[in-house]
Parts: sequence; C-alpha cells; structure tokens
Amino acid sequence: MSWMRGVHDARTGTDILDHDACLALASRAQVGRVAVVDGNQPLVFPVNYRLDGADVLFRTGPGTKLTMANRTVCFEVDEIDPATRSGWSVMIQGRLEEVSPADGPAFERVSGVEVDPWAASPKDHLMRVVARVVTGRRIPRGR
Amino acid sequence: MSWMRGVHDARTGTDILDHDACLALASRAQVGRVAVVDGNQPLVFPVNYRLDGADVLFRTGPGTKLTMANRTVCFEVDEIDPATRSGWSVMIQGRLEEVSPADGPAFERVSGVEVDPWAASPKDHLMRVVARVVTGRRIPRGR
Repeated sequence: MSWMRGVHDARTGTDILDHDACLALASRAQVGRVAVVDGNQPLVFPVNYRLDGADVLFRTGPGTKLTMANRTVCFEVDEIDPATRSGWSVMIQGRLEEVSPADGPAFERVSGVEVDPWAASPKDHLMRVVARVVTGRRIPRGR
Repeated sequence: MSWMRGVHDARTGTDILDHDACLALASRAQVGRVAVVDGNQPLVFPVNYRLDGADVLFRTGPGTKLTMANRTVCFEVDEIDPATRSGWSVMIQGRLEEVSPADGPAFERVSGVEVDPWAASPKDHLMRVVARVVTGRRIPRGR
C-alpha cells in the first residue's frame, strides 16, 4: 500500500511518510484543520477541503482565516483509530492565498471545486494553501 | 443537553458555545491537536490527552512540542460528522508548560494520568496547556 512508504523514526516511534504517501492519504479525507498565527497566538480551525496537487483548497467567510491571507499557515489532517492506537497525520505548510476571479484561468480552474463549507453562512472566499513543505507520519499499531 | 448551550452567530452560521459546554465536549474525546509556532510557522501535532479542569495534559518525547514549552500554543479538538455535516470544535489557548517532579504536589496529582501516547517510543515529558482562553463552536445540521 502506498501509504506504507516511509522510514521508521525510532525517536518518535513513528514512520516518516514520503511526499506521495502524504498526498495519497490527505486526498482521501474531507475535514482537516488550518492553523494560523494571530499575533503570537496559534489558532486552529476545521475546514472542509480538497487537494489541488499538494495545495489545499477551502472556502471561508470574512473572518480570521481570510485576514490571514498571505501569511504562513499549516494545514493538518489525520485519521487515528483509538481502538488500534494507530493512524496517520499529514501536515502541509505553506502560504495562504485567496483565489479570486481576478486570477483568471487559475480561478476558473478551481472555482467549481466542491469544498462547500458546512456552516450555513456565506463563505464566498476560496482559499488556497500554497504547499511549501509536505510531511507526514504513520503511527504503527501499538506496543 | 449541556453542549447545546450557546448563541447563534449568523456571520459564521455556527453556535458559539459557552465555557462549560466547551469543556464538557472536550472531555469526551481522546485525540486532539496541539498547534505551536516555530519561528513564524505554525505546526500541528495530534496528541492523546486528558483535561485537568480547563488545562490539557499530554505526554511527549524530546521533540518540537517539548522545545515549545513556555510558549503560547493552541489545543484543538473536534468531532465532525460528514454524513450530517454537523459537529463541534473547541480551542483551548494557553501557555505550554512541562510538569516535572520538581513541581512536587502539582506533579504528583497528575503524574499518573492516563495519557499514554500511542507511538512506541519514550515520551517521558508530561506537558500541560495552561488554559487562558476556551472557545468553541457547534456546526448545526446542514442547510
């Protein structure tokens, strides 16, 4: 299985996943989290997302996540099974950008992407985490 | 139900939960995430945790999370159901501290807390997020 690709890290007891394995795992979930830094305070928001290559697309309204455009953020997604104490976690670090109609073809290509947010409010802003660093770890089954 | 307590926020389409409702929800999950800031880069790590009042206890090894002791962090936990497009998210913002035997009774009281990390490596450091701000939102069932 592709997501088994990686090397064992004895210090953390986890397997370090390669780039493609990270994206394969991240592409199969629907809900992740975006961490932004407001002043020196990190904040974490769940988002409904889709990948576009290694970039992360999600929609938002006129709140904190929008004001963090052009800042460095971290997208994280994981699947952890308490029963087997195993799972995986992927981080995509990068710059948060708004994708707007002014971007022309770059907007048209992704403007129809199905990342409907679940809260019933206008979330007119399509955001992209421009991937810079993709990392992931698999937590093997317990001791 | 206690976790229904809150006021509706029309801007985000979510219900803002009060302090007690946040803690009631956060106390029933096992896995959350800690966001730290490394330089200007936020990073997010899943952790197995327990609450102690509004504080968050988890264990870690000698990695990034330990080096972030005495820094401002954000703990986040959520439960979101893709089928009903509803759920909740709680953030506990605060300062990350290591709890060590030198802390005496404060250490003894919590040193036996069951926050075994799942990765099979030594994680000898017990960490506490000293809660400063507790916030949460409920995402009502979809439109």
